[in-house]
This record gives sequence, structure tokens and C-alpha cells, in this order.
Amino acid sequence: MTSSESSILVVGTVALDDIQTPSGRADGVVGGAAVHFSAAASLFAPVHLVGVIGDEYPIEELVFLRDRGVDLAGLQKKSGNSFRWGGTYHADMNTRDTNHTEVGVFADFQPVLSEEARSARWVFLANADPTLQSFVLDQIDEAELVACDTMNYWISGSLDPLMDVISRIDMITLNDEEARQISGVSNLVGAAKWIQEQGPRYVLIKKGEHGAAFFSGDDIFLAPGYPLMEVKDPTGAGDAFAGGMFGQIARLGSLEREGICSAVVYGCALGSFTCEAFGPGRMVNLTLEEVEERVEELVDLTRVKTASRMGER
Amino acid sequence: MTSSESSILVVGTVALDDIQTPSGRADGVVGGAAVHFSAAASLFAPVHLVGVIGDEYPIEELVFLRDRGVDLAGLQKKSGNSFRWGGTYHADMNTRDTNHTEVGVFADFQPVLSEEARSARWVFLANADPTLQSFVLDQIDEAELVACDTMNYWISGSLDPLMDVISRIDMITLNDEEARQISGVSNLVGAAKWIQEQGPRYVLIKKGEHGAAFFSGDDIFLAPGYPLMEVKDPTGAGDAFAGGMFGQIARLGSLEREGICSAVVYGCALGSFTCEAFGPGRMVNLTLEEVEERVEELVDLTRVKTASRMGER
Repeated sequence: MTSSESSILVVGTVALDDIQTPSGRADGVVGGAAVHFSAAASLFAPVHLVGVIGDEYPIEELVFLRDRGVDLAGLQKKSGNSFRWGGTYHADMNTRDTNHTEVGVFADFQPVLSEEARSARWVFLANADPTLQSFVLDQIDEAELVACDTMNYWISGSLDPLMDVISRIDMITLNDEEARQISGVSNLVGAAKWIQEQGPRYVLIKKGEHGAAFFSGDDIFLAPGYPLMEVKDPTGAGDAFAGGMFGQIARLGSLEREGICSAVVYGCALGSFTCEAFGPGRMVNLTLEEVEERVEELVDLTRVKTASRMGER
Repeated sequence: MTSSESSILVVGTVALDDIQTPSGRADGVVGGAAVHFSAAASLFAPVHLVGVIGDEYPIEELVFLRDRGVDLAGLQKKSGNSFRWGGTYHADMNTRDTNHTEVGVFADFQPVLSEEARSARWVFLANADPTLQSFVLDQIDEAELVACDTMNYWISGSLDPLMDVISRIDMITLNDEEARQISGVSNLVGAAKWIQEQGPRYVLIKKGEHGAAFFSGDDIFLAPGYPLMEVKDPTGAGDAFAGGMFGQIARLGSLEREGICSAVVYGCALGSFTCEAFGPGRMVNLTLEEVEERVEELVDLTRVKTASRMGER
């Protein structure tokens, strides 16, 4: 297996975030889906990051990604402002209000992928305009797994291009509300089945503190949310989830059932770490050993022996 | 072990419900916490039901409970109307509006427990006025596990008597919003810790379709929600959950960690069955074999092998 064959490609925002949570406030924090995804995935495998920043971006704060093996050759710098998002989280941390979204140089981003990027084996199209996701999809050669993320904004305003993307990919990641919205089905299992019928073999429904439900054909796997005593900032947790999941899939090098379920648990672990600090703060020094420990904790949290299995040890 | 030593006592409402869900409507359905609890628990162990009904109650619809070994000697009949509740569920089935609550003969219910009831080993004080819960608690001799359920109404309006009950029991069951409300702590783990500090060794937080979190000392166990394709009527699911959990604990006859965690999964299974029909409709013919099958399904839904455990089979 060559390096590119085992590597991950992520295309998405590299942003500055202004975040208010019950735990505090932070302005101009480096963030964006591609950053949170890469920070998680690069613990496991080589990552090609494709994105765009403006003149003012504090690029030195992304050095930790390069140190961890993230290829930043696809990170363009353009004249103008970086993508900037501001949001305020409510007391229960499960809901938030968006204060501002300034798309900046990301508005007309049309990346031409390098040879290495286009031949990545695992591809994640982070939340973005489905037109951009399509533009990238057209350049993908022979990936084994292509996933896309999306959000309510595109479901409401760009449904046709989004459904076109969905028909062409292997996996979609969205949260429970988005799954209900895009399918028009209020039951989550029904919503996932509806989405699968539009194309994707795999549907990952992220449920925040409640973990995630992973649908693969007729099979369902449920992963618990890690019970954090304190959530500092949930921003990027969904992208770190996807990054952890892709990282573990890339490390295993297969989509076999047992491996992909373990990858969902790795996703939960990485999502939870991201919540422990503002921006990618917790990810900077996170080690694979700490991740493995949390994964074992997560497995233990749901481990149970039933009557017929009491004999197993 | 005598019969009373392995038996379960439940004290709570025996009601008529008027239920509207996206799946349909049913009026005057037999229900109430004590009925839903008993329907579940009696699959596993003898149950003493203590409650009160009015003249008009269709007692013949509770014959299935007697056939399953529920002792109805503590079910009083009084002149007046039965407890009656009406509610409308929203599209996602996770939230509901109460249309009416007519307390009827339950208003001045002050049961004097029989010898068999007061010596039950496992006691569940279903959701009711904490003053009633206290009145029953005073009569309990030597139960090994006493649990109470409650709701936002009592947290808002009868906090002092409720906190007195909570200081005297072993376990409380509540949903996530109620846990946040009673503790004033928005983080669920923090909320559970706060509640444990008020007395109960065990805190069971019911999360509807997301399953349940069970706190025992510093230990946490997470059980998945069963992914139902269709939810007909969630009324009573929380009480059936408690009934399934108590039933399995009574059957095992111990509060050892492994057993009590399996009991939480049995609770999830019974809660999910209750959602499949209006009122206790699904429970009438439910068999223990079907329950065991669903428990195995639930265990499989979260079963995962991580890297370090790939060798285990």
C-alpha cells in the first residue's frame, strides 16, 4: 500500500470562530471543519487538508497539524478575510444560536486537487455548499469511502444540489434534527432508511451528548456519548468525530463491520476530547494513548452481560 | 426465600388516559404508572400493586395483570372518578403537552399496606405527590431497594417534601430535563452527582429514544434506546422501564453490578415494547422470550471490539 492509498483527504472550512459558551468566551479561535477533522484524523493516518484562508489567518496556530503529518499543500491563501463564524451556546450545550457567518474567501473556493489528494483512499467532504462538494467529487479517482457532512442551511436552501451529492457518496454524517429535516421522517430509524434509499450505504447520525447511531445496510450500531463532567466548547465536535472515525478506518485499512463500529467509538472519543477546551485546544497535545484509554472507557460504559451470556468471561 | 422476600411492591396511579400521538388517538385507555410498571415487572417476579380506582374503571382490562401474578388486593375501589390524564405528543414523540389531569379518587389516597406489601424486598414509589410517597415509605419494613420516580410538577411545586423522600431512598428515576431541573446543574453527569449527594446511591436518568444513564457511586453505565421503526404511543414507557429493571433485579435477587446493569437493559427493552401500541396493549401478550430476544438485540447494538480486544471471541 502506498502512502496515498492509506491517506485521508478532507475538504472544508479553515475558519476563525467567535465562541460564547456557559464556560466562557473566546474570539478569533482557529477552527473550521477541516481543522477539527484533521486534528483528530492525523493521530491515526496521513491527512491532506484542502481549504482556503485569508491574509489575516494566524497560520502559526496550525503548525501542530503539520507536526502531526497533515499535508497543508492544499491550504490556499487568498487576499481577503477568512471564513468567520460566531455562535452562542445555550445552558445545556445541546443547542446554539449563530451570531454571524462571514464566508469571506471561502465564497468562491474552487480547489483543484493535487495528484496526492485526488488519489486519497478515504475522502471527507466537510459541511459546505453542495456545489463545492460536487466540484470536489468530480475530481476523486478511486476512493474506497467518500463521506459528506451537511447542515440545516443547505437542506433548506440547496436541497437539489445536496441530494445530487448524496446520490454519489458512500456515507453521510448529520445530526438527528438534520436527519429528520432532510427525510421528512420524524422517526430516526425511518429517517436513516430514507436517506440510505437516496444512495449512501452508510448513515451516521450524530446525537451530541447521546452519542451516535450508525446505519450500515440493515445493520445498526449505537455508540454512547462520553459522559463529560464539563463541556467547555462543543464547536467542532462533529468534525472531530468524523476525523476520529476516518482515522481509525484508515488505520485498519478496511470497512469490515467490526472495524467500522470500532471507528464510530473512536469518533465519539475524539468528539468528546474536542469539547474539553475552546477551539482545537485539547487536540494540540492529545496522544493516541489517551484516545485508546477513552475508547476502552466508552466500551466499558455499555458493556453488559445478560443472562445467556453470564457464562462468558 | 419466601414469596414476599422476592416480591416487588409498586404504589402509584391506576388511570384512564386520553392519548393523541402522530400515530392516532385513543381515549379512556387503561394506564397509570402502577399499571405500566406492573405489566412489565410481572413477567419476572410477583408484584403487589397498590393503587385506587373510581366506580367507572374497566377493571376487567386489568385481568391480564392478575393472570400474570400481580396481587391486586391493594387496589382499592372508591366512589368517584379514576385518575385521568390526557396528552398530545409532538411529531418527534420526545415531547408532549398535557391536555388535562383529573386526580379524582387518587387525591386523598392514603393506602395502608398489607403485611405482604410492606415486606416486599423491592419497592417502587411511582410518580405521585411526595407526601404520599413519604406516607408509604413510613410503612416499609426492610426493603433491599426502594426507588422513587417523580416529575417536573413536583420539582416545581413540592420541592421540600420531594427532597425529604429523596433523602430516604436508594434510587431515583427521572428524565434528563428533570435531572437538570432538580439539581440546577445543566451537565447530566454533574446533575446525577448532585442528586446522589442528596441521598440515593443510584440515579437512573431516562433519555427516551436515547436510552438511559445509570449512576451507581462513581460508576456509570449507559444503555442504548431500542431503535424502533415506529412509535405508536410512548405513554408509560418510563414506568415500564422501571418495571423491567425491577423485574430483572428481583429475578436475579441481587444488586451486584453486572446484574443491575443488565437490569437497566431489560428496562430499555420493556420501555420500547410499551411504545409499540396504545396503553399497555403490547404488554398483554408479551412473553419473557420476546423480552430476552430484544435484550440480546440491545446488547448487540452496542457490542464492539476495540483494537486491544480484537483477540477476544
